[in-house]
Amino acid sequence: MGDNGKILIAQSGGPTAVINQTLAGIVLEARKFTEVSRVYGALRGVEGIVNEDFLDLTQETTHNLEQVALTPSSALLSTRIKPDNKYCHDIFKVLKVHDIRYFFYIGGNDSADTARIVNEEAKLAKYDLRVIHVPKTIDNDLMLNDHTPGFGSAARFVTQAFMGINLDVRALNGVYIGVVMGRHAGFLTASSAIARKYEADGPHLIYLPERVFDMNQFLLDVKEVYDKYGICIIAISEGIKDASGIPIITTLCKEIEKDGHGNVQLSGTGALGDLLADQIREKLNISRVRSDTFGYLQRSFFGCVSDIDQHEAREVGERAVQLAMWNDMDGSVTISRTGNYSVDYLLDRFEDIAGQTRHMPDEFINQAGNNVTDAFKFYVRPLLGSGLPQPSWVRAPRVSKLINND
Amino acid sequence: MGDNGKILIAQSGGPTAVINQTLAGIVLEARKFTEVSRVYGALRGVEGIVNEDFLDLTQETTHNLEQVALTPSSALLSTRIKPDNKYCHDIFKVLKVHDIRYFFYIGGNDSADTARIVNEEAKLAKYDLRVIHVPKTIDNDLMLNDHTPGFGSAARFVTQAFMGINLDVRALNGVYIGVVMGRHAGFLTASSAIARKYEADGPHLIYLPERVFDMNQFLLDVKEVYDKYGICIIAISEGIKDASGIPIITTLCKEIEKDGHGNVQLSGTGALGDLLADQIREKLNISRVRSDTFGYLQRSFFGCVSDIDQHEAREVGERAVQLAMWNDMDGSVTISRTGNYSVDYLLDRFEDIAGQTRHMPDEFINQAGNNVTDAFKFYVRPLLGSGLPQPSWVRAPRVSKLINND
Repeated sequence: MGDNGKILIAQSGGPTAVINQTLAGIVLEARKFTEVSRVYGALRGVEGIVNEDFLDLTQETTHNLEQVALTPSSALLSTRIKPDNKYCHDIFKVLKVHDIRYFFYIGGNDSADTARIVNEEAKLAKYDLRVIHVPKTIDNDLMLNDHTPGFGSAARFVTQAFMGINLDVRALNGVYIGVVMGRHAGFLTASSAIARKYEADGPHLIYLPERVFDMNQFLLDVKEVYDKYGICIIAISEGIKDASGIPIITTLCKEIEKDGHGNVQLSGTGALGDLLADQIREKLNISRVRSDTFGYLQRSFFGCVSDIDQHEAREVGERAVQLAMWNDMDGSVTISRTGNYSVDYLLDRFEDIAGQTRHMPDEFINQAGNNVTDAFKFYVRPLLGSGLPQPSWVRAPRVSKLINND
Repeated sequence: MGDNGKILIAQSGGPTAVINQTLAGIVLEARKFTEVSRVYGALRGVEGIVNEDFLDLTQETTHNLEQVALTPSSALLSTRIKPDNKYCHDIFKVLKVHDIRYFFYIGGNDSADTARIVNEEAKLAKYDLRVIHVPKTIDNDLMLNDHTPGFGSAARFVTQAFMGINLDVRALNGVYIGVVMGRHAGFLTASSAIARKYEADGPHLIYLPERVFDMNQFLLDVKEVYDKYGICIIAISEGIKDASGIPIITTLCKEIEKDGHGNVQLSGTGALGDLLADQIREKLNISRVRSDTFGYLQRSFFGCVSDIDQHEAREVGERAVQLAMWNDMDGSVTISRTGNYSVDYLLDRFEDIAGQTRHMPDEFINQAGNNVTDAFKFYVRPLLGSGLPQPSWVRAPRVSKLINND
């Protein structure tokens, strides 16, 4: 590896609350190495690479980088483009022209695939290039990772949302449906279970993309809970599917919007929650039924973050640079749990991460497929970080009735 | 006023993040007075009174009350019942039987009306009863109040949500619509303006129930912003109305659900946001259009609270007790602004609050009716409390292009 190498960083896919911690981790660690001549940031992921839209992050102040690290969403902006081989070739061409020797790509499994192809191009061309994929996704669905940066903060938002919903629905009764992000993996929806403190607390039912969603069974489940508690709080993944694997939401939409990866748009619409609420109203004859689709707030709300998630997002960035500089290695940084609670950072092969989706393991889902197990709660709790608020109910004794004392 | 009087407290209407601060303020202040024999709390507002569902809060620990104060939503549970004269008569009957001499009713303008009727009943019956209405509502729509407890925390949630949305939409482009609570008053929707830090930040357009919503003008507004910035972020009140005063959302709903006050259900459905998003997609031919309906999170999310709002919610409770005990007065506690920023608490007549709605004054809304003025921002900022997060963008210089250098 030659001296005076330039570093390029890019961010991809859906933003998270801590993705800029990773950016700051890479930039600040990289600037410690005298052999690094410049640290560039590409605007809008791979789009910015092919268009040479680079910022010179070597000239960014450390103080502002620390402020950016605390700011949610992708500071270098993002893209939904999934590069094909031709696109990756164009990326490689630009890297070569700018004499970039280290490429750090922060993203999900699609980004790991892009990193893999660009790395292969460099090898074929005998161009000395270290490529590191750095993980992030609120969906927590990357293979080989115990969990991913961004997930803990989003899970904390979902938990705090359901904590409040428990109290709100308790005060005014009825049925409540909260629709949570998660196309194929139910981790984020499942995290709502941490909101339960008191015996009657919800969410009482949790539906995940890992299990077939059956409308009739759903209505039976809701009726059973409602008859028992007088309320029913439901957490449901936007990605729930029927027996043939078709997302429930696509049965509703006239025009189905797809992104560059061929993914159907699930978020940014309240259609799924409204459909389920209508079903409950009509079939179960319950009058007060409400649904909220948590939407973009769960990944971008400014002011709900897990400190554990912040620390780890920072460290995957620092470790990525160390692995490239000290160990001269390519690959995907992964998080491995080494204790309760401690982690270590490893480097795995791109192809073991790229294009694959990690699902909730069976031991995290109950037999009926409408809730999570204690094993999941034990797994997820540390990721939400410290200082989680705790609701308290009034516990004063009842006063004897003087009129209606039957 | 005789010795050994009992106190009764009830909470009504939609929960807020700080309504239990008011409850704790009343209970803890009341327990200091030796002439108070018992402090009762009615479960589910007026429903709990007619059913004698009372908790003896005299026996609640101070420590738990302080924990309850930090918990959002109504700890004594709530009701949507709006009592008529017969219902108020039943309330009075129960108060008399239980020898209750002080009645504190925490709620909005409907609760002020109930307090007024019960107070008149007591006077007619020559029954010694102090009745105090204590304000709360996230809508900030009570007459004579500079603002109401509960509003500041909800406004802070809306602001932090739009701060994150600004960053999210900046990263991925497109049009975003955030639908905010507010049936007749636009204060909460308007608060989103505090999210603007950088020149290109949204919300770029803010639509309030105080101005007629015209779909064609709306689409022209969106196009203008989108052409300028490449993004458009919109804050819109769920209560926006057409020229004949009909809520836009009612033009969409097959079955319109009404609560006990005859109010149409506006929340708990994503229909309005979805309709507006469809219009933008179809008429302006913009592909990435997203809408979120903030729903119940904005009033119940556990972990987003204004410290100013907490302090004031506590104090209106304390002052209510002081006014009843020391000054032997009936009425509605109101918040008056005495400086920037300081407040005082007054007592006004029930009939000046009851059944009326305060709207955004004209000087808070821009000429075009699609945004707020600096006067509004100056008014609202202190209410959001201290420690509001601040987003930071990367400010590094551009790198010269080597290939596409045209």
